[in-house]
Amino acid sequence: MRQEPPSGKSMESVINNPATERPAYRPLGVMVLAAEELLLSKMLRAIGDPPIQIVLWNGHEINRSEAVAASVLIRDRGALFKLISDPELHFGELYSSQRIEVQGSLLDFLEAVYRVWPLMSEKRAGRKQFLSFSAARANTLEGARFNIRHHYDLGNDFYKLWLDERMVYTCAYFKKRDMSLEEAQLAKLDHVCKKLRLKAGETVLEAGCGWGALALHMAKHYGVIVKAYNISKEQIAFARQRARNEDPEGRVEFIEDDYRNASGEFDAFVSIGMLEHVGVEHYRELGKMINRILKSNGRGLIHTIGLNYPRPMDAWASRHIFPGASPPSLAQMMQIFEPFDFSVLDVENLRLHYAMTLGHWLDRFERHADLVEQMFDQEFVRMWRLYLAGSLTAFKTGGMQLFQVAFARADYDAPLTRENLYESWDAQDGQL
Amino acid sequence: MRQEPPSGKSMESVINNPATERPAYRPLGVMVLAAEELLLSKMLRAIGDPPIQIVLWNGHEINRSEAVAASVLIRDRGALFKLISDPELHFGELYSSQRIEVQGSLLDFLEAVYRVWPLMSEKRAGRKQFLSFSAARANTLEGARFNIRHHYDLGNDFYKLWLDERMVYTCAYFKKRDMSLEEAQLAKLDHVCKKLRLKAGETVLEAGCGWGALALHMAKHYGVIVKAYNISKEQIAFARQRARNEDPEGRVEFIEDDYRNASGEFDAFVSIGMLEHVGVEHYRELGKMINRILKSNGRGLIHTIGLNYPRPMDAWASRHIFPGASPPSLAQMMQIFEPFDFSVLDVENLRLHYAMTLGHWLDRFERHADLVEQMFDQEFVRMWRLYLAGSLTAFKTGGMQLFQVAFARADYDAPLTRENLYESWDAQDGQL
Repeated sequence: MRQEPPSGKSMESVINNPATERPAYRPLGVMVLAAEELLLSKMLRAIGDPPIQIVLWNGHEINRSEAVAASVLIRDRGALFKLISDPELHFGELYSSQRIEVQGSLLDFLEAVYRVWPLMSEKRAGRKQFLSFSAARANTLEGARFNIRHHYDLGNDFYKLWLDERMVYTCAYFKKRDMSLEEAQLAKLDHVCKKLRLKAGETVLEAGCGWGALALHMAKHYGVIVKAYNISKEQIAFARQRARNEDPEGRVEFIEDDYRNASGEFDAFVSIGMLEHVGVEHYRELGKMINRILKSNGRGLIHTIGLNYPRPMDAWASRHIFPGASPPSLAQMMQIFEPFDFSVLDVENLRLHYAMTLGHWLDRFERHADLVEQMFDQEFVRMWRLYLAGSLTAFKTGGMQLFQVAFARADYDAPLTRENLYESWDAQDGQL
Repeated sequence: MRQEPPSGKSMESVINNPATERPAYRPLGVMVLAAEELLLSKMLRAIGDPPIQIVLWNGHEINRSEAVAASVLIRDRGALFKLISDPELHFGELYSSQRIEVQGSLLDFLEAVYRVWPLMSEKRAGRKQFLSFSAARANTLEGARFNIRHHYDLGNDFYKLWLDERMVYTCAYFKKRDMSLEEAQLAKLDHVCKKLRLKAGETVLEAGCGWGALALHMAKHYGVIVKAYNISKEQIAFARQRARNEDPEGRVEFIEDDYRNASGEFDAFVSIGMLEHVGVEHYRELGKMINRILKSNGRGLIHTIGLNYPRPMDAWASRHIFPGASPPSLAQMMQIFEPFDFSVLDVENLRLHYAMTLGHWLDRFERHADLVEQMFDQEFVRMWRLYLAGSLTAFKTGGMQLFQVAFARADYDAPLTRENLYESWDAQDGQL
């Protein structure tokens, strides 16, 4: 039930003006505030006592730690109660609607909180969490379509404002720390292709192809034939448009359909940033599909946001940003591979690369915040700012991981070492 | 119940000599043989119809496939029934006692069988297998001691015959295909140290240190202080002896005790080839120990034989070679890391390196087979020949994996890429 924010003015006058006209209210007001402060302190303790200060609508300051990294303004009492009732879900909502404001750097504030909040003890890992996923639908063929369109069909013009020129909306690979976002996304595409050891003339199935960057890159630079699946209408339309210029030989077929309907036989399977949306309960189904389409010498790669241990996605992001999404732990991912005797060849954790990628996205997003507000509204701008900044912070502080898992049929004749991934660019066969 | 081998002579005479003195027995004899052939054919079908020929004691040949890669001689009827009753357990026992002989190359025979036997379907992966592990004890503190000594206390002189000069009894790392075993074991030690990013002055806990090669290498070439645990009496004695020359500064402490009793605070944890002996039911305990001893910037590496999906070790090896051992699948390994919020940074599958390592060991073992027979007996020689050849084949054909899993505390500031593992030897700081 939504609580309407009461006017904060009377409280303020009670506290700040000892010569109030209604002295009888004073003790009660002070008691209420003491209770609020107690609840807030309790909440701060529960989330690990981050070094932050809370400022109430009346100017009252609550500060449980000595060094303060950031300050949060709560604009009304209703916001305070909402926040206390479920900080994970309501902070984002209250921030988006400006009933909570972060004073100073949003990133500093988030880092101060994230560094202590996910204080992962054995106890916490074992705890069951029951969260509301009201906006999400189960990832059936129909439900997945709904969930995916919620996020990816916000409009290509919106994503163009802050993604790289290739429109790659997944973690980049910063071979060198000072690479531009464009260079790092290109390096990621090649890192993936090299892990797959693609050879000209081979066939590749891509599940969840975004705006088509990887499919077109594989076809153009590695000479492979690609079938690329996606259920986002806008993305597929964009990818097809793009293929007219970038794939004159017609090596890539973009298919607006669910990965589960894929058919044919392929030398390689690849999926970048789709698994987050699949749901653990569908992993065996995904493995079965890969097992169905992969040739005997076949290999594959899955690139996904992941977690150190299974837990639901945070309640706010799950409701407002990514309905139906849930990043897996590595043990959960193995449900794709183990029932089908696939060999895991290589797992690389690129967590810090995602923090850097998100840093670039957030910068570009901020540069175009006015345009985004024109496209949507201010609440949308604040919601996405928080989503980008929060994700950046989670990757930076170790709350989220980025796994690239390369796998193959059990008898795949894998190369002895991974040295080919680290040859200098010059030494490679002119792909770049 | 053990069936005594009946004399094969009468059957042979029945079949090969139509003018037998006991013609009344002939039809019965033929019927018995037909039944045996039926059972053998059924067994061959059950293990995937490998391209092998079976030759019975009487010269009768059973051959279900066109191209024959290898031939097996069964020397008596009792052996045949034992084999049929449980090929996985009894083949090894019958081979060791010479009641079964492989004609031609043992490796060719094993490969022909392994290529089809572990025909891993979804169905097989789901199947429960109930095997007898009579020789093994549970890996309690006491049971583990028994199990480990069964294998590792066979005598250092025995292992010296066929291991490399450093006495490294785990998978080597063939940076280049033509490396000698000595070079490849040295490369493995460095590969592990580089993955751990050891810095001089840091402290390392090693669980299951074998004859001490890694501990001494880390101390000497990376300047770290090592506590190395092992419950094999002979190995620890050897390692201490060796430390007198190789560790004059006393940086390494070799401790004859169970890893579960480790204490102190360390920058890194490492365990090479011990996890196979821990048992999945103790993984959480191992994780808890690592969580107890690892500093906040700590990281670790576990190197272990593994499987593509959980299944018990083969019955023969479990009874005769490695009591109490069970290589894990990756999902099972995650039980060490996930409850404690460790981040998996890197998983590398070195399966083919173990096939190469075992190739070297098998060659050296064969060169000293006479000496081994003097130390033990012929049955021991054949048992170990089969164990080395069978392991080689399992790694070669994809039935077994070798996982190196690097992990760290969630907030460990990992390097951006794994490039440091692949710098040329010259470029490194003179460690080699």
